[in-house]
Amino acid sequence: MPKEEKWLPVNSLDDIYEYILVLAVRGAPMIGCAAALSLAWWRFEHPEGDFAAACAYLKTARPTAVNLMYCCDALAQLNKEVKDYSAQNVVRLAVEFMEHEKDMCAAMARHGASLVQDGDNLLTHCNTGSLATIGVGTALGVIREAHRQGKKIHVYVDETRPLLQGGRLTAFELKKEGIPYTIICDNMAAHLMKQGKVQRIFVGADRIATNGDFANKIGTYSLAVVAKYHGVPFHPVAPVSTVDFECHSGDDIPIEERKQEEVFGAFGTIWAPEGSHGYNPAFDVTPMELVESIILDSGIHTKDMVKAGSLKDVKKRHHL
Amino acid sequence: MPKEEKWLPVNSLDDIYEYILVLAVRGAPMIGCAAALSLAWWRFEHPEGDFAAACAYLKTARPTAVNLMYCCDALAQLNKEVKDYSAQNVVRLAVEFMEHEKDMCAAMARHGASLVQDGDNLLTHCNTGSLATIGVGTALGVIREAHRQGKKIHVYVDETRPLLQGGRLTAFELKKEGIPYTIICDNMAAHLMKQGKVQRIFVGADRIATNGDFANKIGTYSLAVVAKYHGVPFHPVAPVSTVDFECHSGDDIPIEERKQEEVFGAFGTIWAPEGSHGYNPAFDVTPMELVESIILDSGIHTKDMVKAGSLKDVKKRHHL
Repeated sequence: MPKEEKWLPVNSLDDIYEYILVLAVRGAPMIGCAAALSLAWWRFEHPEGDFAAACAYLKTARPTAVNLMYCCDALAQLNKEVKDYSAQNVVRLAVEFMEHEKDMCAAMARHGASLVQDGDNLLTHCNTGSLATIGVGTALGVIREAHRQGKKIHVYVDETRPLLQGGRLTAFELKKEGIPYTIICDNMAAHLMKQGKVQRIFVGADRIATNGDFANKIGTYSLAVVAKYHGVPFHPVAPVSTVDFECHSGDDIPIEERKQEEVFGAFGTIWAPEGSHGYNPAFDVTPMELVESIILDSGIHTKDMVKAGSLKDVKKRHHL
Repeated sequence: MPKEEKWLPVNSLDDIYEYILVLAVRGAPMIGCAAALSLAWWRFEHPEGDFAAACAYLKTARPTAVNLMYCCDALAQLNKEVKDYSAQNVVRLAVEFMEHEKDMCAAMARHGASLVQDGDNLLTHCNTGSLATIGVGTALGVIREAHRQGKKIHVYVDETRPLLQGGRLTAFELKKEGIPYTIICDNMAAHLMKQGKVQRIFVGADRIATNGDFANKIGTYSLAVVAKYHGVPFHPVAPVSTVDFECHSGDDIPIEERKQEEVFGAFGTIWAPEGSHGYNPAFDVTPMELVESIILDSGIHTKDMVKAGSLKDVKKRHHL
């Protein structure tokens, strides 16, 4: 992507594990759905297999994605009383999970779009649209909904090094939707804000602590610091399932480190000198103090609401 | 670079104009020297040519580089009284210019290195070493001098999108010098600072206003905002010739915009969807309020000194 659209077959749990690991499947909600459907398929193929072990295995593909964990744990414990691990039941639940994801995207998009004014220049990081979720997306869903409502918006797209999900995938989706956009390198956002060219920033979230701190794609924290300095409102957008009730602060969120080779180049081209060292955290953590409000499918949580503990009370709508 | 070291011949002023434009010759001090030597060569070849026009032409290759302008203007007016435009005189002055550049690098390096502690993790942006200057470099010269003094340092290198001068050139120079370094994407610096892993930041400067605001490679401003938030001391390092006495604030510095294609890919690979828009400012301006002190060859100018007008009094040491 964006040069070629390619569909990948899942013939084993190792396949989907690998796809999640190398980001062929990416975006917290999409990863959850892909895991649920793969487990359902696996159950059909292996009616006598150790289902709980299969769930536990997939869960380890990406340690920061709480949606993946939630989904795998929920499937592992499905229908606790009756313990109905039948393929039929697993499929039913996986499909239900998908439908909920779609509904949640639509709800987030509505809440977020209510903050967007006609004529706004928005900025987003990474990819959080249809290629990362099952519905319209999280942060990108907000942008699409604002556009659908007829608001004249323009979107600055952080290219999002090292894997360039913004410059490739978000640009691809915005182009497809006919929403005006401009690609920038991640280090240019501050220069734009200084000129007053950014009115609002929407990003995704991979895990949200109950105090509002959240993990998201590397570069989100940098962007949030810069937004705070310029007084530009900054919003993570995520389904309620992203809130980790066991996690009370950003300090508790583990950060996945990826291969250093990713920062040495892009798309198979390496430009760093041989023998270089690289540092490649996949995520960073943004503290709530830099956030204007968190947009969940259940509604908008302002800084004050979060401070008063509102995230501890949100109800997960999944039936899993 | 860094794959291949290639020397480019200058057979016309158009050649050197083009090299400066496409960044084959880059770094404010190096550009100045290259222009001076090219004009000297041109004078030998065209003893009757319009020397002032040649200077005026080269000057326009990069509008933000004050060193280039200074050098071209100075050569154009050389020996005002006697107006000695002879090839001999132009060469003498160009060589003198180079020698001064070397001395200035050494002086900046000494001043800057005095701030570096044993065990420090330093961070730098873009390339400011021997590939950008005639001597040891500006910001990278400080780092090299601290290493030469036996201080155990480690350097985080911003890859510096879009043209990757950090990930390619700075990494190349540090490797050659045996100084431990780690390449990061530009959007990772904030995450490192949050973890307390960066003690001090040195960057170059392409133009410094008399109030201390300075222009440098795009991404410098973002880095400075993030450094301020984390309390990490931030220092531009530049020769006195970088101070533009006509320019009293960063608002007066024109920002060069480069081709949008540079943000669509790297090294001949394009990953953005066809028909995308891109924004590609080559520089940004960092206000003095984000700077701890400015390191010039004439000495260290603290925030208070600059506020009191110290930059208006520095004497340019060039004889040109």
